Amino acid sequence: MTVAAATATAWRHRHLLDVDVLSPGEIGLVLNGALGMTEVVAGGSARTATLRGVGVTTLFYEASTRTRVSFEVAARRLGAEVVNVTAGASSVTKGESLLDTVRTLEALGARMLVIRHSGSGAPYLAAGQFGGSVVNAGDGRHAHPTQALLDLYTLWRHLAPDADPAGPFLAGRKVAILGDALHSRVARSNLWTLTSAGAAVWICGPATLIDGFGAWATGGIGGSRPFTVTTDLAAALADADAVMALRLQRERMTAGLLPSLAEYAARYGLTRDRLSTARPGALVLHPGPMNEGVEIAPDVANGPQSVVTEQVANGVAVRMAVLELLNAARIAP
Amino acid sequence: MTVAAATATAWRHRHLLDVDVLSPGEIGLVLNGALGMTEVVAGGSARTATLRGVGVTTLFYEASTRTRVSFEVAARRLGAEVVNVTAGASSVTKGESLLDTVRTLEALGARMLVIRHSGSGAPYLAAGQFGGSVVNAGDGRHAHPTQALLDLYTLWRHLAPDADPAGPFLAGRKVAILGDALHSRVARSNLWTLTSAGAAVWICGPATLIDGFGAWATGGIGGSRPFTVTTDLAAALADADAVMALRLQRERMTAGLLPSLAEYAARYGLTRDRLSTARPGALVLHPGPMNEGVEIAPDVANGPQSVVTEQVANGVAVRMAVLELLNAARIAP
Amino acid sequence: MTVAAATATAWRHRHLLDVDVLSPGEIGLVLNGALGMTEVVAGGSARTATLRGVGVTTLFYEASTRTRVSFEVAARRLGAEVVNVTAGASSVTKGESLLDTVRTLEALGARMLVIRHSGSGAPYLAAGQFGGSVVNAGDGRHAHPTQALLDLYTLWRHLAPDADPAGPFLAGRKVAILGDALHSRVARSNLWTLTSAGAAVWICGPATLIDGFGAWATGGIGGSRPFTVTTDLAAALADADAVMALRLQRERMTAGLLPSLAEYAARYGLTRDRLSTARPGALVLHPGPMNEGVEIAPDVANGPQSVVTEQVANGVAVRMAVLELLNAARIAP
Repeated sequence: MTVAAATATAWRHRHLLDVDVLSPGEIGLVLNGALGMTEVVAGGSARTATLRGVGVTTLFYEASTRTRVSFEVAARRLGAEVVNVTAGASSVTKGESLLDTVRTLEALGARMLVIRHSGSGAPYLAAGQFGGSVVNAGDGRHAHPTQALLDLYTLWRHLAPDADPAGPFLAGRKVAILGDALHSRVARSNLWTLTSAGAAVWICGPATLIDGFGAWATGGIGGSRPFTVTTDLAAALADADAVMALRLQRERMTAGLLPSLAEYAARYGLTRDRLSTARPGALVLHPGPMNEGVEIAPDVANGPQSVVTEQVANGVAVRMAVLELLNAARIAP
Repeated sequence: MTVAAATATAWRHRHLLDVDVLSPGEIGLVLNGALGMTEVVAGGSARTATLRGVGVTTLFYEASTRTRVSFEVAARRLGAEVVNVTAGASSVTKGESLLDTVRTLEALGARMLVIRHSGSGAPYLAAGQFGGSVVNAGDGRHAHPTQALLDLYTLWRHLAPDADPAGPFLAGRKVAILGDALHSRVARSNLWTLTSAGAAVWICGPATLIDGFGAWATGGIGGSRPFTVTTDLAAALADADAVMALRLQRERMTAGLLPSLAEYAARYGLTRDRLSTARPGALVLHPGPMNEGVEIAPDVANGPQSVVTEQVANGVAVRMAVLELLNAARIAP
Repeated sequence: MTVAAATATAWRHRHLLDVDVLSPGEIGLVLNGALGMTEVVAGGSARTATLRGVGVTTLFYEASTRTRVSFEVAARRLGAEVVNVTAGASSVTKGESLLDTVRTLEALGARMLVIRHSGSGAPYLAAGQFGGSVVNAGDGRHAHPTQALLDLYTLWRHLAPDADPAGPFLAGRKVAILGDALHSRVARSNLWTLTSAGAAVWICGPATLIDGFGAWATGGIGGSRPFTVTTDLAAALADADAVMALRLQRERMTAGLLPSLAEYAARYGLTRDRLSTARPGALVLHPGPMNEGVEIAPDVANGPQSVVTEQVANGVAVRMAVLELLNAARIAP
């Protein structure tokens, strides 16, 4: 970031509920912050103290390994006191309302609340009630802001490491997002951040799984940043600099949206042959967990172009940066 | 507490299994201790070191958010090393006996054991086996001592903040406990502590849910402290200084004790209209989690007279005080 | 260990997947290390710092109290940063592959991975992928190396406390292992370590539960250390210095391997009468959790000859020693 940009930008948000409110400058703050955290993360053992003693509670109503542990590790590395609450072992099974749970966790000492919920918008409800900071760790089909930010960070480090992260550093780049966009909070959040950074984004999947995106694409993200929607996989992959395969939920089959997993794999699975039609060395991303052999072939998932494991590691650094920014905003006068 | 009282009282218990063995002086020690912890709790980040390195294990055979996290946060703030064991993910699912589990946890380093169990009396069994301190975090219908102590602490701070917490500071005060007293360990423990502090306690609910309390009320708590039992909600609420609504378990319906939730809400739910018949500004308590719209109306649960969230925060301070007192007794010669 | 032995032995393993690769000298290193840790463990609160900041993740695909908590406590006492992942609350329920999970946990900061899995060999798969150290905490019927090492440590301290732990300190001693050897990773791992230390090992149980061990016994452990297999309980117990009762899984009944639990208890349960036919003061071991009244009578399980609880405490010390040895090998050039 140039000095001018850096001094002109301040982080204004106490909560991180979606990426749609982040300015390019704020996105740049997250990415720059994550870059600084990377050294800490790489060390494995180093800890900083910016969240020393701050109560961070993870509240997960949906199963998760990587996201929950990623936030836990990030918060602990910043010195926070982490409490984990999952739906299975909690009062949630007694029918307690989300708002009561949020009030209770705050009274128990939580100052930052990381929440995953199957209901789109649930973190907004929580934020309306919570006196500290709420971080959306995935809500229904709606948003998964830290996932989009870690994806963007990963692309920044590979495609434009010397560019200003607050600027259009993906201008001239094409990113293809493949699969079940309809049910994907990852796709929705990535559309905002990728277009904000200037990328040409292509959404591609069977017609039943991209339903409704056509109208949005025409209007454009934020009313001004169009993207492309297609069922034509060859067109989506052509000259792509990065390809993101989305997880295919098995329950889509029972809902009648797909004939079979095999059919999906045959028509839209990201195989080595298909990947070869993208730009040479195109990056392969996946938000995980992967269904290898369905939306992505094993040799692609684990091949030289895959940055899937790097995404996971970057997630810790990005979440450290986000927690630090939110905490500073939380305690600001 | 007066100086004379303070010097005359010593905490004698290695375990906290019920409140029925606590003298007024010992109750005063808990409440005074909690008051001292409140500053630490309010700070959010401060930690003391009186339990530095002490192994505290929570062993929960029943689901819980607030109580388990409350003990975890309390113990960590005192510097303890906390291990959480829940029935779902443990050898309990393999049929291991409670006593074997207790012996195992002690051998693994636990010095204080916080246990919740569906069997009334289970913590007594545990205490008979365990070399350290056992804290009852709720056993069947029997007792929930730290809940009663945090309720008492909450009433003390609101109704008689300058009074000696070892004395009859609720003398002349009326507390109404509404609902399913029959199955409530919270009601049973509160009867002991509230009458110990001098309160006039009214238990009120449908006849099927207060069955057997009449005989106890006549004999009196500890054979000497009578209370009142009634199905007449208006009588119970009249001039009450505090009203505690109990959680109504949905499974009471299937057991034939209630015709329906709607019927219960209509006849015994704590609504704003009904609350207005209590003393002006009467405090509203609930042990949580609440069934809003059943035993308590949403506008009462979240209204200006509700101290429900405060109860949760006070629970951390009270549990810190309890853990500190028990730990001192545990390591005393 | 003599000075000569100590200087001649170095720990060569980055992973601990089975005990079959451990030389007597390496076993001695673990046992000596555990002896040094015992003081730390006995203190209850002391911590060392050899794993300061090292990410240790427990990944349990099967329920466990003692083993999971034992590793957690051991790692924390060494200063590690522990993350717990269980199958129930993780992406495992979404069908993520073991290898993806392992890669993900490493990217999230795990440097040591403690894994329990129902599939024999799963930790080997994990080790092939993981850049740090993998510890097998039990895989299918195959191996449970830290259990065998803690059993051996327990026998060393009782039967030959002054002997070199790298030598044949159980020579002339007889150890009987009773019950369901067929499905027992504990029995398999103990066969290696007990015979390595020179013990005469007898495997005894109903024919259906020791099937296949006869051929192995004749060939000998490692092709050179024979043991005895029999259905004759009296012969197995005669003059035994130690008796280890194995847990009987209830599901063996439904598999048709046993007529009933009562029948098993009557014929092979370790009762006081039967124990009296072993050497006076013979030690009683059990890996836990126990089915009291089935494979072991309650008065034996909790009697004066039982070292079951001691095994659990020793498990923490042994695992501290193992983690320290593996970590040193992991970071060695």
